[in-house]
Amino acid sequence: MQKFSMVAKFTAKAGERDTLANILLEAAHAMHAIPACETYVVHLSETEPDVLWVTEMWTSAEAHAASLAQPETRAAIAQAMPLIAGVDGTRLRPVGGKGFQLDDTAH
Amino acid sequence: MQKFSMVAKFTAKAGERDTLANILLEAAHAMHAIPACETYVVHLSETEPDVLWVTEMWTSAEAHAASLAQPETRAAIAQAMPLIAGVDGTRLRPVGGKGFQLDDTAH
Repeated sequence: MQKFSMVAKFTAKAGERDTLANILLEAAHAMHAIPACETYVVHLSETEPDVLWVTEMWTSAEAHAASLAQPETRAAIAQAMPLIAGVDGTRLRPVGGKGFQLDDTAH
Repeated sequence: MQKFSMVAKFTAKAGERDTLANILLEAAHAMHAIPACETYVVHLSETEPDVLWVTEMWTSAEAHAASLAQPETRAAIAQAMPLIAGVDGTRLRPVGGKGFQLDDTAH
């Protein structure tokens, strides 16, 4: 099964980055109950004060899509949306590297 | 100690993405000898045929900087450069999430 990953750049409204980060960290905590979510990490930009990034790794794109229908995820999105000025998400296909278990070679 | 992470978008010259990916995967393999490199994963863009991303997690920014002076890293960079049309790297500060061990709270 081909794993799925994402990198997403969130631009928070002025002064709202930390609040947004906390909401996303709570969402990350809820992912502990979803084995298909292998990683969901929140990062602050070192150079842009209103920007944070989320990097995710999932066992499949389908598992990621299914998680978006989860009540906790929907609640977190609803909570976060008013704080977001922009989001740029990129869907990716992880192919290997350190700290990554590949189920099957796929590139 | 504050951990350090990066996301980098590489745009390969036309037709060179797979070759570039293989060079970066070799670089990732060399990272197994560098404990301070916790993750170094290569991802292919699902939407842009010439684009791949690398996501990295390090125990510190200093450890990451030191790795750039390693002969293996310099060789990989020299090998990769002719295949690269553009690279956009973003320096980040990871603050938490699933699949991430935080040494100290830092945001």
